[in-house]
Amino acid sequence: MSSPQPPTEATTNLSIKDEKPDGVIPLDAEGKPLSKSALKKLAKEKEKAEKAAKRKEEEERAKAAREAANVDHATENYGPQQMNQSQTRPNLNYTWLANISAANDGEDIIFRARLENTRAQGAKMCFVVLRQGMDSVQGLLAVSADGKVSKQMVKWAASLSSESIVLVHGRVAKVTEEIKSATIGDAEIHISKLYLLSEAPEKLPMLYEDANRPAKVVEESEGKFATVSLATRLDNRTIDLRTLANQAIFRISSAVGMLFREYLFNLDFVEFHTPKLIAAASEGGANVFKVTYFNRDAFLAQSPQLYKQMLVVGGFERVMEIGPVFRAENSQTHRHMTEFTGLDMEMAFNEHYHEVMEILAGMLIHVFQGLRTKFKKEIDIVRQQFPIEEFKFPNNPKDVVVVKFKDGVKMLHEAGHTEVSPTEDLSTEMERTLGKLVLEKYDTDFYILDKFPSSVRPFYTMPDPEDPTYSNSYDFMMRGEEILSGAQRVHDANFLSEQMKKFGVDPEQPGLGDYVQSFRNGAPPHAGGGIGLERVVFLFLGLGNIRRASAFPRDPIRLRP
Amino acid sequence: MSSPQPPTEATTNLSIKDEKPDGVIPLDAEGKPLSKSALKKLAKEKEKAEKAAKRKEEEERAKAAREAANVDHATENYGPQQMNQSQTRPNLNYTWLANISAANDGEDIIFRARLENTRAQGAKMCFVVLRQGMDSVQGLLAVSADGKVSKQMVKWAASLSSESIVLVHGRVAKVTEEIKSATIGDAEIHISKLYLLSEAPEKLPMLYEDANRPAKVVEESEGKFATVSLATRLDNRTIDLRTLANQAIFRISSAVGMLFREYLFNLDFVEFHTPKLIAAASEGGANVFKVTYFNRDAFLAQSPQLYKQMLVVGGFERVMEIGPVFRAENSQTHRHMTEFTGLDMEMAFNEHYHEVMEILAGMLIHVFQGLRTKFKKEIDIVRQQFPIEEFKFPNNPKDVVVVKFKDGVKMLHEAGHTEVSPTEDLSTEMERTLGKLVLEKYDTDFYILDKFPSSVRPFYTMPDPEDPTYSNSYDFMMRGEEILSGAQRVHDANFLSEQMKKFGVDPEQPGLGDYVQSFRNGAPPHAGGGIGLERVVFLFLGLGNIRRASAFPRDPIRLRP
Repeated sequence: MSSPQPPTEATTNLSIKDEKPDGVIPLDAEGKPLSKSALKKLAKEKEKAEKAAKRKEEEERAKAAREAANVDHATENYGPQQMNQSQTRPNLNYTWLANISAANDGEDIIFRARLENTRAQGAKMCFVVLRQGMDSVQGLLAVSADGKVSKQMVKWAASLSSESIVLVHGRVAKVTEEIKSATIGDAEIHISKLYLLSEAPEKLPMLYEDANRPAKVVEESEGKFATVSLATRLDNRTIDLRTLANQAIFRISSAVGMLFREYLFNLDFVEFHTPKLIAAASEGGANVFKVTYFNRDAFLAQSPQLYKQMLVVGGFERVMEIGPVFRAENSQTHRHMTEFTGLDMEMAFNEHYHEVMEILAGMLIHVFQGLRTKFKKEIDIVRQQFPIEEFKFPNNPKDVVVVKFKDGVKMLHEAGHTEVSPTEDLSTEMERTLGKLVLEKYDTDFYILDKFPSSVRPFYTMPDPEDPTYSNSYDFMMRGEEILSGAQRVHDANFLSEQMKKFGVDPEQPGLGDYVQSFRNGAPPHAGGGIGLERVVFLFLGLGNIRRASAFPRDPIRLRP
Repeated sequence: MSSPQPPTEATTNLSIKDEKPDGVIPLDAEGKPLSKSALKKLAKEKEKAEKAAKRKEEEERAKAAREAANVDHATENYGPQQMNQSQTRPNLNYTWLANISAANDGEDIIFRARLENTRAQGAKMCFVVLRQGMDSVQGLLAVSADGKVSKQMVKWAASLSSESIVLVHGRVAKVTEEIKSATIGDAEIHISKLYLLSEAPEKLPMLYEDANRPAKVVEESEGKFATVSLATRLDNRTIDLRTLANQAIFRISSAVGMLFREYLFNLDFVEFHTPKLIAAASEGGANVFKVTYFNRDAFLAQSPQLYKQMLVVGGFERVMEIGPVFRAENSQTHRHMTEFTGLDMEMAFNEHYHEVMEILAGMLIHVFQGLRTKFKKEIDIVRQQFPIEEFKFPNNPKDVVVVKFKDGVKMLHEAGHTEVSPTEDLSTEMERTLGKLVLEKYDTDFYILDKFPSSVRPFYTMPDPEDPTYSNSYDFMMRGEEILSGAQRVHDANFLSEQMKKFGVDPEQPGLGDYVQSFRNGAPPHAGGGIGLERVVFLFLGLGNIRRASAFPRDPIRLRP
């Protein structure tokens, strides 16, 4: 593409002037010198003509100037790009905004980003905010003397829709006054090239800036800013996920899984992926999803429970799994979903199920510590959106508070909740109340409730050796809500059959037969636990609703996106 | 419990002897000295009595000796233990066999193990093989002079069923001659205590030793040893999983996932868990499992494809997932299952989809190298059961061979397979043949087939910019079979709608609407890939059938255990 010729300076007018030399005596048509009046008339005419010429000259000059200004020397430096089909590979060097600060002052960089917004300042300048994940930077487009950034380019940039994807070339420039509209406060980008890779519509179904606004700011705005409901967010999840809080939440969620595995791999756990399609409802018939499996019925696993136990019987001393768990529970609560992510482990032990409970406690403390040290940036970002007290936990697994269920009920009784039964499950409200009592008494948001009543645990739970009303089972609690449920399991096949009958479960039913049989072929004492990933995340961060910790949550009503 | 009194030495008999002094002249009933004949008679009688006494004495001595031998001083050192209900916690120090060798000579250790077999040698000695995961050791029980190991204890140990779980106390003893019946060859355990924790039945549904026998040994036995079929193994999976080969296979499978994540975490990928319950068949209507979701239908995700793309659109530049993938394909082959584990990744790229292809190649090489260096023991164990050539791959991602689909078809044509079409998918047989040709030409078991015909890829695949008959898509091959499928995806919403219509997919159908809409709100160019975990494992190790790489495989027929 070639630029048009530069405008010619008004040289033509200047040469016309030169053709009219002064100091020559004017003559009339017959060759005689003119009379005074004629001369006067002539002078007037001349003056008139000169004025006209000057006017014309000025008009032309102005026109040329206008044309000069409108010619765009920057056309190659901006504009929409052809849809990327991997046509070429120039192998340029691209930068992550996460690595940019005032320390990079003067560096030329190239990066792809989302255009968060644009703000024109007159015709010659435009500010933009450019975002990548959790990082954003202010960009500045200013018309340049060399024509490389033109007025047209600035105008075009200012017209771009928010949330479009752009490719940016620019130079990092240190700033003295902190920039508050972007996460990078000490530097901005002086943009030299700007291309549109993917255009967002003029009006998005949900505005990013509304979704990204801290709840506190909305509250304090006294109605100026509308609250974006969770339903709206979830309906428009691919926009909502771009908010800083969500970018941080899901990095934290990813880290929880990573830290879980890190701790258990170090203790020689082997990671498995057990089947989710099973022949029988694994834990009684209720709350199970039915699948059409060719010509018969199958079910979705309500947990990897039976399979992780069979793996222990299969000679794997220590197993773990991270995978989906399906519960066809038709209730809408702040902490239940029909599909969630289970972090599961199971292991043989030597003497006492507390060996396993202690490993679980150590693992969770490793997770909390890992988040606090390696994901501080993310936690701080979430806290801007959801302000909550720091999560309190002991640094040493030995210091984790263990409250026996019976004693927990006593604490509730002493606090006036005398209606609570020591042999029935706690309501969500009483769980939370107990959490507050434990926090007051022991200054911790993380504790273990041990020795649950047998009647509220599944058939495979080992009863307490001294009082079978209770069992060798435990829940781990965060901020007064359950995040982990576990127990010693019955490893004796005959006793297991007895217990199943007692719980009204048929040991011979398809699917369960293999499970019971496996224990007949020699089984070590074992225990384990299952953690809800989204529970850990939403309670650690205080998000108030488990759906905020799931990228695409599922409940009885919501099956999309 | 107190032991009975030690047997009294035969002191009584000795004192009786003393009561019959020699040198006294015998008299008859009337007081006269006896005649010679009478004396002779008397002598005979005396001799007879003496013989009888001696006989009696000997009998008593033998009886006492028998009694002495039968009294068991070792009753506390062996026997069945009460079912473990975590009654006590003595906090003993337990050992892993993996850490035991001749270097521990003389050390007293305690460990829980599976009793692989017992072999009595006379009444006073019994050899046992004790196993933990991939490690086993020979144990020796020998009647001891101090009575702490008794004949009864040896007899009891010899009678224990194979595959029972036992608790062992013993001392490590270096041996000079290599022990071949256990994996620990340079040491054995001199057992002092042996308790039964869980008893296996006298006859297991499938014998461990049969399942554990290397295929080669079975073959060479000329019918002496029966081959255990895969179906029998899978029916009795909790016994089959105990074999050394399986203990190694699933440690390797676990490691593949770990190495996959390790590589991608280092490149700032974020791990997600996308929903498996979805509102619409994600990739066309075929091969999808239907779920009854409260009052409506849902489907099981055939891949996390649509969701991982939506996450990229949601501002996560680089995402990964490990999770189950469901395919309702009604065919029984050596490499298909109805549920398998997908290792998935998706990422935005800057210039060309080969950026992503190269990361995938680097990741897989990281996996192969990690297995080879850190899991050599496991690979060697598997190779004893399944002998196969070492897997050949380049150490540098830049050296991975990339063959264009078109050129691969040319290679097949040149090798005489002129029927192969350059615009249709390859049959399994032709895939393998091409793998062999690539191996011959480039000496590698690992290569990339790039630029597949558009018609054989899903609607979301980006066509090649120069020839839309082909597409920006690739398969990664191991030993001539596909383990990874990936592509650049269409990120332009309008073009995506067009492509969907061209492929006969309705862009407005429930479930797909959210997907298409997400690209309208700004989407970067992106590409990714999905790997079948079990495929990588079974092809890397040469297991011949994908089911051997799944703990509890699922196919149209098998839904248990």
